Amino acid sequence: MVLPLILPEQRGTIEDALRAIFAEHSLPLFRLMEYQMGWLDEHSVPIDHSVEYPRQYSALCFAACQAVGGQPEAALSMAAALELVDNFFQVHIDVQEGSQERYNRPTVWWVWGPGQAINVGDAFHALARLSIMASAERGMPLDTALKAVQMLDVACLRVCEGIHVDLVYQERVDVTVDSYLRMVREKVGALMGCALELGVLSASASPETARGLREFGEDIAVASRIQEDAQVLWGEATIGETMGSGLLNKKKTLPVAYVFEEGSISQKRALGNIYFKRVLEASDLVKIVEILDTADARTYVHNTMKRLLNRALDRLNGLDISPGGRSDLERIAQHLTHQDP
Amino acid sequence: MVLPLILPEQRGTIEDALRAIFAEHSLPLFRLMEYQMGWLDEHSVPIDHSVEYPRQYSALCFAACQAVGGQPEAALSMAAALELVDNFFQVHIDVQEGSQERYNRPTVWWVWGPGQAINVGDAFHALARLSIMASAERGMPLDTALKAVQMLDVACLRVCEGIHVDLVYQERVDVTVDSYLRMVREKVGALMGCALELGVLSASASPETARGLREFGEDIAVASRIQEDAQVLWGEATIGETMGSGLLNKKKTLPVAYVFEEGSISQKRALGNIYFKRVLEASDLVKIVEILDTADARTYVHNTMKRLLNRALDRLNGLDISPGGRSDLERIAQHLTHQDP
Repeated sequence: MVLPLILPEQRGTIEDALRAIFAEHSLPLFRLMEYQMGWLDEHSVPIDHSVEYPRQYSALCFAACQAVGGQPEAALSMAAALELVDNFFQVHIDVQEGSQERYNRPTVWWVWGPGQAINVGDAFHALARLSIMASAERGMPLDTALKAVQMLDVACLRVCEGIHVDLVYQERVDVTVDSYLRMVREKVGALMGCALELGVLSASASPETARGLREFGEDIAVASRIQEDAQVLWGEATIGETMGSGLLNKKKTLPVAYVFEEGSISQKRALGNIYFKRVLEASDLVKIVEILDTADARTYVHNTMKRLLNRALDRLNGLDISPGGRSDLERIAQHLTHQDP
Repeated sequence: MVLPLILPEQRGTIEDALRAIFAEHSLPLFRLMEYQMGWLDEHSVPIDHSVEYPRQYSALCFAACQAVGGQPEAALSMAAALELVDNFFQVHIDVQEGSQERYNRPTVWWVWGPGQAINVGDAFHALARLSIMASAERGMPLDTALKAVQMLDVACLRVCEGIHVDLVYQERVDVTVDSYLRMVREKVGALMGCALELGVLSASASPETARGLREFGEDIAVASRIQEDAQVLWGEATIGETMGSGLLNKKKTLPVAYVFEEGSISQKRALGNIYFKRVLEASDLVKIVEILDTADARTYVHNTMKRLLNRALDRLNGLDISPGGRSDLERIAQHLTHQDP
């Protein structure tokens, strides 16, 4: 199900740019970061696991840049910054959710412990903007560089707000569909929207186009997350997603919020009995899916995903983007939501 | 022993600037951050615990700015960014070291759990630079703003490298005095050096002065940490430092590194037997101090601290700073190392 997201030459370009950033740093901490990037194993022996990593933030940033007539090179340092921010959040979320695997490898905290993993994430966060600063020294207009850093920081704050609410919801069963969707828009939509916004910024296109593509990206991110959560529950999971252990942490997903809000009294009570347990076990997941199926939550989830995807594609109508750029963005949207084009 | 570090009007200025940043954000996550700032209790009821917090990064930033002839207002957004970065690291270090208290209050992770605390720290990190961006929109030269953000990111990376090594040393007994001092210079010196560097940058003074004051700040930070660690071991601890629980985590300090490197065979063996235990208990700390005393490690630590403090004060000789600014910097240096002026 996982296809290469971006053209091979762009994939090589972003990977080279990311490797060039790390080539400047020889300190021991960077070996742990290169493990996370998929370039080293846990004994610091070079591997190339990263060919399987999506690098979807770069893909969207490049696609937005080209759709508004820019050259991908202009977006390169921003794309690199986005990938580093994504890795910062990945490392921390793996600690927060207790995930032992990502992309079929042990997570950083599982290998080096949570203290080192918190620190590895922090280092990714601190490193992320430096590629944009370096671009400013090589000729990127200073106001563009500052604006890019600001957009990234605002997006990171939104992700943090989303994670905060997601963690609060773990302990609650009064999560409505609307509040769930708002949370996901912050947690996973903010950075994807920012990827498109930065692509537009790098090409100096209009703020209206930037806003339109940001909203497109947010919708796609939410649709993609809903789709992946459904695949975990209904048995088609792939791509190293961590929702299985996430569900054991009592994280709520859309179908669960749907049944708590719209289910029958007996469906709500059955689900509540499971979530009021102090700790969930794997067998509870089977029971949860049975309850969700009695409420036909799968159809609801599918329809919601489709609605978000279609709204995202509709948003492209009013925007000043090239036909080729539009079809690239459509292709990425379908890929991220696991739809056949 | 804890005195107000900066003139009352400057203390009010930085506190007002920090509160203004938070006034723009009403999201739930920010209540946890305001708890950490000392402005709310754990039920989000306003308190003012922050009067007891040192805010030493602001103090140093303002002092450096004024010492090179600048106006403190020019340094204000940088001082605010430094305090936010300091709080980011505090929240994460409390998780990493398992510290239950800071400044006589429960730490964020102790109240809300490690997952939320990791996220609160991340939000401080993302928020930190936005005050500098806002200054750029209000007239700070763009290259100054970008340079400030870059200096902050470089300092954060150095702190991360220091934390990485500190965590590695927890599991080792072959920590030499030199490697310990190098680690502390990264972990606590980088941000304090950066505070002075940013103060100089805000006043557009020369890079040579910035470098000189950064080195002054790094020496002071290392001397201050050594002094505080000694106070924990030899019973004069104050100011919410977390070294007690830190030592139980097998963190190494200067006197321990000294005995492992320079002690007699029997002293090394006795200390090694304690540190090879899987978990230390409070009673082990008593034994550790006894061994350190047989090697007169306290005198060694005191002399090392004095040497660093004197080197720092000597660095001020060659720098182009005002006599008043110099005496402020000397006063802060003596305060941070708990020396009578």
